Amino acid sequence: MRILVLGGDGYLGWPTALHLSQTGHEVAVADNFARRGYDNELGAESLVPIESLQTRVAVWRELTGKSIGVYIGDLCEADFTSAMIKEFRPDAVVHFAEQRAAPYSMIDRKHAVYTQVNNVVGTMNLLYAIAEIDPSIHLVKLGTMGEYGTPNIDIEEGWLEVTHNGRTDRVLYPKRPGSFYHLSKVHDSHNIEFACRIWNLAATDLNQGVVYGQQTPETALDDRLATRFDYDAVFGTVLNRFVIQAVLGRPLTVYGAGGQTRGILDIRDTVRCIQLACENPAQPGEFRVFNQMTESMSIKDIAATVARCFPGEVTIEHLDNPRVEREEHYYNVVHTGLVELGLEPHLLSDTLISSLFDITKRYAHRVNAELMLPKVNWRVSAV
Amino acid sequence: MRILVLGGDGYLGWPTALHLSQTGHEVAVADNFARRGYDNELGAESLVPIESLQTRVAVWRELTGKSIGVYIGDLCEADFTSAMIKEFRPDAVVHFAEQRAAPYSMIDRKHAVYTQVNNVVGTMNLLYAIAEIDPSIHLVKLGTMGEYGTPNIDIEEGWLEVTHNGRTDRVLYPKRPGSFYHLSKVHDSHNIEFACRIWNLAATDLNQGVVYGQQTPETALDDRLATRFDYDAVFGTVLNRFVIQAVLGRPLTVYGAGGQTRGILDIRDTVRCIQLACENPAQPGEFRVFNQMTESMSIKDIAATVARCFPGEVTIEHLDNPRVEREEHYYNVVHTGLVELGLEPHLLSDTLISSLFDITKRYAHRVNAELMLPKVNWRVSAV
Repeated sequence: MRILVLGGDGYLGWPTALHLSQTGHEVAVADNFARRGYDNELGAESLVPIESLQTRVAVWRELTGKSIGVYIGDLCEADFTSAMIKEFRPDAVVHFAEQRAAPYSMIDRKHAVYTQVNNVVGTMNLLYAIAEIDPSIHLVKLGTMGEYGTPNIDIEEGWLEVTHNGRTDRVLYPKRPGSFYHLSKVHDSHNIEFACRIWNLAATDLNQGVVYGQQTPETALDDRLATRFDYDAVFGTVLNRFVIQAVLGRPLTVYGAGGQTRGILDIRDTVRCIQLACENPAQPGEFRVFNQMTESMSIKDIAATVARCFPGEVTIEHLDNPRVEREEHYYNVVHTGLVELGLEPHLLSDTLISSLFDITKRYAHRVNAELMLPKVNWRVSAV
Repeated sequence: MRILVLGGDGYLGWPTALHLSQTGHEVAVADNFARRGYDNELGAESLVPIESLQTRVAVWRELTGKSIGVYIGDLCEADFTSAMIKEFRPDAVVHFAEQRAAPYSMIDRKHAVYTQVNNVVGTMNLLYAIAEIDPSIHLVKLGTMGEYGTPNIDIEEGWLEVTHNGRTDRVLYPKRPGSFYHLSKVHDSHNIEFACRIWNLAATDLNQGVVYGQQTPETALDDRLATRFDYDAVFGTVLNRFVIQAVLGRPLTVYGAGGQTRGILDIRDTVRCIQLACENPAQPGEFRVFNQMTESMSIKDIAATVARCFPGEVTIEHLDNPRVEREEHYYNVVHTGLVELGLEPHLLSDTLISSLFDITKRYAHRVNAELMLPKVNWRVSAV
């Protein structure tokens, strides 16, 4: 298949592009390098050094003989988006090209507005381009498990069968997200479902859990193919950050009581899920939703797992929770759709964490410990 | 109370400002005149001539001795929004200041993006301004019954008690709206609920039905206090448009089968509902939702009512439906919240329609009949 990976220079976009290329697909990536720009703004960078997109693509070709096309531009520029779809004519578009950090969206008003406008407008431009150029192009959109929040009922895959006053309907699963970023994804989901309804588009919305890990078989082929490994309090995901804190001999920083439970998954499962979604497309007019996660775990259990596996002393510190979220709650998620398509999950194992310890030790000299402490507070509405 | 009416130059914002002023409140209005701009763009205008905002306010003062403050500016300009709230220090903000026409949002990509960005960013700027300046300011936000779509279960007021697999939660009512405009209001509702949760704001979301009528006791005091009366296919609401078609001896144009059922209300009830919401504010942290409508009616029944009341021959014509919507569906809406606060509905009666006939006859020479035919098609994704 011809697959276009939007946000293909990012933490997950890049390994996904490699995996799709490796498994025989014709791949192009698009990026506006917003993620590298956030690094400049925050004075942060990936723990593992990453090459330019041009070098990455050249190395991949050198090692495997496979080409990956490159489009440099911004989805918010409708002319760029439309011209790219017209030229590449993908069978599927994998859409990672959004601002993806909840704390970034909560820095202040400007960052909140930027996040929602960037994410919503980029996705709308893409919907219009697909509808106009070829409505049979399958949209594979990255959402987040955080869209659901923490309801007191089971979390289904995007839709819910509701009986109320003796009548029944299948409705979009009601969502109550916890940041302006998560809200932007909820807005996207509503817009996409509507586009499926009126233009007969085929879309898969992947509500992804918190991803951990840094290597896939493809990125491991060469240092120059490495993907990002973020540990700062804004872009670092929780398990990755704990591993780095352990290696540095610093306390693992748990927000509040740590009973917050989240869906998680291994980066190797992310790239496989995307492949499965592309190879088994949604039907015309279908808004299909998968919960892209392999297990649930509380933050304090993730910390305990890292502490247990680390060959050395580890302490755990509970910080005042900068977020507004329930610290003890029910959490039970249906996530069978991708397993039915063939996903064989890598569950969180000692092995994987050890590999992260090795990576971290190798690059420990690059850590700026200050970046690990949360500075963005949900309760303060910075203008 | 001190009440700021955003969008106070519009069809409903202006009569609301007058009603609040008349009932003893200290009122200011804000507007960027976007609505007058859409007229220029579409080559349309209100059937009833309207004065400039400056003249309206001067006439009101001349007749009643009451002052209405005026702010000219755009909510999307955060500095303007914030400075206005700082200066006027309202107890309540009534927020009508959004692009409000579904067909306008469906013209093409640019209009869809404009509608969502304008509505969502304006509301976000307002939320940040309130949180920053005084979180006790009560936000009274105009939503629309169209946010819900037409579910096969009863429509509750914003929240739904769901039992699923033996567990229960109170969730935001699941919505499935029918245009990029209606979607923008769903996005707003999610953003506002979040702001209530994290910043303890007090908000009332009024999901309003289709409004009909053109006069309130206050606008009727003087021709120069009149509000808009739109009949074009983009901004005209359905009953108003049917009345004008009847007076002109043209067929009433029903989209599709006409079984589409909608919540409706009299303009006099709109202004009263806003007053009730302001005078009985939501609690800090509360996201309160009312369904602001007084009865439900199908499009074909609205047409039949107009035909029955009109003193003359009326024909009804069914056009191909330009929208994507169910033409036969279940529709049962709970709308008791505002009645409990004291609303005494004006139900659709022959009297009211007759008054609309009179207004229409008086200004029939101003009609451009071409504007009444739908030109925006939901199925075509005009870029």
